[in-house]
Amino acid sequence: LGSGMFVHVRKLLQDLPAYDLALLLESSPTKTRTVLWQLIDTDHHGDVLEELNEEVRKGILKTMRPEKLAEVTEGMDVDDIAEVLRALPDSVYRQVLNSMDSQDRGRVEQALSYEEDTAGGIMNTDTITIRADVTVDVVLRYLRLKGELPESTDSFYVVDRQDHFIGSVALAKLVTAKPEVGISALIDEDIQAVNAKLPETEVAQLFERYDWFSAPVVDDDGRLLGRITVDDVVDIIREEAEHSMMSMAGLDDEADTFAPILKSTQQRSVWLGVNLITAIFAVVVSNMFEDILSQLTILAILNTLVPSMGGVAGNQTLTLVIRGLALGHVGDSNAKALLYKELAVGFLNGVIWALLIAAVVGVWKQDMTLAGIIAFAMLMNMTAAGIAGVTIPLMLKRMKIDPALAGSVILTTVTDVVGIFAFLGTATLLIGY
Amino acid sequence: LGSGMFVHVRKLLQDLPAYDLALLLESSPTKTRTVLWQLIDTDHHGDVLEELNEEVRKGILKTMRPEKLAEVTEGMDVDDIAEVLRALPDSVYRQVLNSMDSQDRGRVEQALSYEEDTAGGIMNTDTITIRADVTVDVVLRYLRLKGELPESTDSFYVVDRQDHFIGSVALAKLVTAKPEVGISALIDEDIQAVNAKLPETEVAQLFERYDWFSAPVVDDDGRLLGRITVDDVVDIIREEAEHSMMSMAGLDDEADTFAPILKSTQQRSVWLGVNLITAIFAVVVSNMFEDILSQLTILAILNTLVPSMGGVAGNQTLTLVIRGLALGHVGDSNAKALLYKELAVGFLNGVIWALLIAAVVGVWKQDMTLAGIIAFAMLMNMTAAGIAGVTIPLMLKRMKIDPALAGSVILTTVTDVVGIFAFLGTATLLIGY
Repeated sequence: LGSGMFVHVRKLLQDLPAYDLALLLESSPTKTRTVLWQLIDTDHHGDVLEELNEEVRKGILKTMRPEKLAEVTEGMDVDDIAEVLRALPDSVYRQVLNSMDSQDRGRVEQALSYEEDTAGGIMNTDTITIRADVTVDVVLRYLRLKGELPESTDSFYVVDRQDHFIGSVALAKLVTAKPEVGISALIDEDIQAVNAKLPETEVAQLFERYDWFSAPVVDDDGRLLGRITVDDVVDIIREEAEHSMMSMAGLDDEADTFAPILKSTQQRSVWLGVNLITAIFAVVVSNMFEDILSQLTILAILNTLVPSMGGVAGNQTLTLVIRGLALGHVGDSNAKALLYKELAVGFLNGVIWALLIAAVVGVWKQDMTLAGIIAFAMLMNMTAAGIAGVTIPLMLKRMKIDPALAGSVILTTVTDVVGIFAFLGTATLLIGY
Repeated sequence: LGSGMFVHVRKLLQDLPAYDLALLLESSPTKTRTVLWQLIDTDHHGDVLEELNEEVRKGILKTMRPEKLAEVTEGMDVDDIAEVLRALPDSVYRQVLNSMDSQDRGRVEQALSYEEDTAGGIMNTDTITIRADVTVDVVLRYLRLKGELPESTDSFYVVDRQDHFIGSVALAKLVTAKPEVGISALIDEDIQAVNAKLPETEVAQLFERYDWFSAPVVDDDGRLLGRITVDDVVDIIREEAEHSMMSMAGLDDEADTFAPILKSTQQRSVWLGVNLITAIFAVVVSNMFEDILSQLTILAILNTLVPSMGGVAGNQTLTLVIRGLALGHVGDSNAKALLYKELAVGFLNGVIWALLIAAVVGVWKQDMTLAGIIAFAMLMNMTAAGIAGVTIPLMLKRMKIDPALAGSVILTTVTDVVGIFAFLGTATLLIGY
C-alpha cells in the first residue's frame, strides 16, 4: 500500500463484496486496517461491519463517531445492528439509538432485550405473516401487490389476530397448491416455533436436526417475534466448533490474528501463567525425589518420557470426550461405559508402550531393573490418563466450567504428577538405598 | 435395555426422528448398537444411515446383506446413496447398484464419478429447470400441474436446449412478479454456478460468503448437473472445523466415540508412536548433558520448566495460524507481518516469564547464576516458539501436509530441543567445570 496509490486502491475496494472486504481487514495488521477502512466506500461500511469478527469490529468501532455510526447502521439487519451496539460503550450506544427513527429503534431495542447468544438476539423481524382463513389465491395476489419479499424468504407464518404463531407455510407449497385451497391446509407440521430465550447453540442443533432453512421465533406467550435464517446458523456452527479448538490452547475464539503485539501478549499471558503454576508443581514433585536423582543421573534424563506419553494419551481421550459432549453423544447414561472403554484402551496402550520402552531402555542401558521401572510407570500413567481423560471433562461440565478451556491443564497436571511419582517413586523403592 | 423389553423399545424407536436415532446409535457401545439397529423399523434404515457418522455407518453396513441395502437406499437422496456405497467393499457395491432400477443407477453412477469431497459428490439431481423465453404465468401453471416440488426448493434454474446453465430464478421473485413478465428478466445475477469438481470446502466458503440457500452445479461445459443445498453445507462446515481440533490430538475426525477397544487402541497408537520418537529425541539431547546433570541435581529438577512453557506458547501461535489458514486470513502476502508480530509477542512473553521464573528460582534456591541461566533459556525458547509457531504450519502447508495433523508434534520437538539446549548448554558453559 504505497503512497499516492490511494485513489487506485479505493477503486479496487469499491468492487469487492462485503465478505471479501471483511476478510481483507481481518488479514491486515492494525495500522493498514485503519487506512483501509477509510478507503472503503461509506455505503459499504454497514455490510462490512456485519461480516467482521467481534474483536476486529470493536477496534474499528472505537474510531467512529456516534452520528456516523447511526448513519451506517441504517441499511443493516436488526440482529446485526444489535450485535454492533452491544460492542459499544454505554454512552455512545445511547447516542446511536437516539439518532435512529422510532420504528427502527423499537425493533433494535426489542432485539437488545434478549441475551446476545439466544434466538431473540439473532432473529430478524422482517417476517411476512398471513391469516389461516384466506385462500392461496388471495395470498398470491397480496404478494404480487407487495412486489418484493425480504431477503431469503422461503416461507410465511400463519398467525391469529393476537399475533400468536399458528404454523408455517412453505413458499414451495404455495405455488404448487390450487388457488382455491385454504392456507390452513398447507401448514407444515414439521416446523416448530423457537422460543426467543433458547440458547443459540440449541437453535443451531434444531436447524441441523431438521434441515431447516428458516424458523419462526416466538415469546413465552407464543406470539411471533421474528425469524432466524440458516445463514446466521452457519456462523454459529463455525464459531462453536472453533471455540473448542481455540479454548484448548487457551485462546479466545474471537481472537484477532493480527491484534497489536501488546494486546496479544497480554491475552496469552493468562494461559502461560496457569501453565507455569502447574509446571512448577511438577518441579516440586520431582524435587521430592532429589536423593535418587542425584544418585542416578539416568533417572533425570528419562524423567520426561513417562509424563510426556501420558499427556498425549490423556489429551486424545480428552479431545474425544469434549467433542462427544458438544455433539451430545456423551451424557450421564453412557458415561460409565465410556469410562470402562477408555480405561481399557489406556491399559492396553500402556502395555504396548511399556514393553516397547522397556526394550529400548534395556538395550540402551543394559539395565533390566531400570527397564522394569520405566515400563511399570508407563503402564500406570497411561491407565491414569485414560481415566482422567474421561472424568475431568465430565466433572468440569457438572461444575459448569468449560471443559475445553480448563480440561487440558488439569489433565496435564495429573499425568505429570502420576508419571513422576510412578517413575521416581518406584525407583526409590527398588534401587534407592 | 433389559430382556423382554424389546417390543416396548421398538415402539419407542418408531416415534423418533432419524437424526435422534442416529445420535442414539452413535452414543451406544458397539454391542447395544447392533441390537438397536435391528429394533429400528426397516423403513427408517435409509434415513438413519444418512445421518450417521462415517465410522459408525461402516460398522453397520458390514452387517447388512446387499439385497437389503438396495431396498434401504430406495428412498434416499442420490448424494447420500453415493456416500453409503463408497463405504462398501467393491463386490457388495456392484450387487447393490445392479439391484437398482436403471434411472436411479444412472444418477448414482454419475454422482460416484466425482470425488467424494467435491461439489459433484454432494449434489442432488432433483432440480427444476425452466426456459428463459416463457412468462411467469406459464411457469406458475406448470408448477401447479406438477403438484409438488423437491424438498427445500428455493429457486429454479434457467437452461437452454442443450441444458447449459443460464441463470437462477428465486421462487420469491416468481411469486411477486407480474404474470406477463418473462423469466429472463427475473434471473438473479448473484448466483453463480459451481463446477462439479470444486472441493467441498470451497463450496462451503462460497455459501458462507454469499449467504446462499442453494446453488446450481455444472460440468466443465457449463451443463447443469444438479444442485447443492445449504443443509449439506452445514455438515461440511461442522466437519471441517472439527477436523482441526481432532487432528491436533492425532485423531481421525470421523472417529467413533464408542468404537471397540481394540480398534481405538490401534487408531491411537500411531500418534503415540510418533510422540515416543520425539520424546526419545529429547531424552537423547538431555543425555548429551549427562555430566552437568550428574554434578547439579537441581538442573535435572528444573529441566522440564523451559520446554513446557515453550511448548504452550508455541501451541498458542500454532493454533492461531492453523485457524487463520483455514479461514483464509493467513497467506503469502501477510506471512511476514505475522512472523514479525509473533516473534515480538514471543520475545515479550519471554521477558515477562524469564523475569518471573528468575525471581522464583532466585528466592527458592538463593542462586543468582542459576536464576540467570533459566531466565536466559526461557527468553530464547519463548522467542523460538513464536517463530516456530508461524513457520512450521506455513511450511507444512506449502509441502501439502495438513498443519493441524503434523504441526504440534514438530513444534513440540523444536521447543523441547531448543529449551534443553538453551538451559543445559548455558549451564555447562557457565558453571560446568
